Amino acid sequence: MSRCLQAMDMGKVNSMDFREFVEVFGNVIERCPLIAAAVWSQSPFSDWEDLARHFSAFIDALPQSGQEGVLRCYPDLAGHELHQGTLTAESQREHSVAGLMSLGANEGLRLAELNSQYRARFGFPFVLAARLSDRETVFRELERRLHCPSALELRTALGEVKKIGRLRLADLFGVDPAARL
Amino acid sequence: MSRCLQAMDMGKVNSMDFREFVEVFGNVIERCPLIAAAVWSQSPFSDWEDLARHFSAFIDALPQSGQEGVLRCYPDLAGHELHQGTLTAESQREHSVAGLMSLGANEGLRLAELNSQYRARFGFPFVLAARLSDRETVFRELERRLHCPSALELRTALGEVKKIGRLRLADLFGVDPAARL
Repeated sequence: MSRCLQAMDMGKVNSMDFREFVEVFGNVIERCPLIAAAVWSQSPFSDWEDLARHFSAFIDALPQSGQEGVLRCYPDLAGHELHQGTLTAESQREHSVAGLMSLGANEGLRLAELNSQYRARFGFPFVLAARLSDRETVFRELERRLHCPSALELRTALGEVKKIGRLRLADLFGVDPAARL
Repeated sequence: MSRCLQAMDMGKVNSMDFREFVEVFGNVIERCPLIAAAVWSQSPFSDWEDLARHFSAFIDALPQSGQEGVLRCYPDLAGHELHQGTLTAESQREHSVAGLMSLGANEGLRLAELNSQYRARFGFPFVLAARLSDRETVFRELERRLHCPSALELRTALGEVKKIGRLRLADLFGVDPAARL
């Protein structure tokens, strides 16, 4: 999952069998290798953004329970899995960039409380593209989204899943996605 | 994933939050915690068979690429993952019951060749409820299914996924599913 495809063209990606493809792209959507495995059916891809669109389209085509299921595969930000050391490599990096690896005790407690309220309200964890955020944004967005209507919040959260996926794909291809998010 | 719910009634299952639910049922469908996480949306469940029906219904509702994606999350029987020691605990047990942990060199080569032909033909690995099989059945079924039409084979393979899921659920609840498969 941590392999970089900088030197790899789409021809190489398009020639991968499904095992190789899932090995490389299996965590573009957190802990959902099923989605990479499904996207492989759509090969060949014209470029990395075409590949990103297929990940997004698969998520959009899921029934609502499946979309909620995708979200439930993401960890709480600075939550249980960070403290247990069981974050995926991608998620750990994202935590680090957002400054979430070293919260003070009060900030940590406050975030845990907000995460818990969010999960109780929506039935899935708070998901945010942490690499595009800092601590302040995380707290502000969590407090704001906690009060959104459920249907809107589901769409917002899936939008974050897609942003995270695009960033992870861009990493794998060694491109800068910033201008296009 | 290896917890046994023998002493647990459905009331306890129905009171699980999604994290607990995914921890317990996340590998009912091999390496697809997304599906358990989606099924949690349908809680409460009346009994373990009701739960099993929801797993099956979710798979049936996926687009074809998603159904193929589910299959691609299963290992080859007696293949690369067995030799690498990376089988899930559930899959390892199933291999063991079917006598696939100790194939002779010729049998192993023959199975690898048939698995490879099957993957090349259908684009997913050969999936069989190994606990209901023995070595002879594995070879016979693989040779037979290799020549089935693709649409029929997809249905057959998903039927095996559902059987495996029922057996894994029955284990978790400590019940005997044999008469009902």
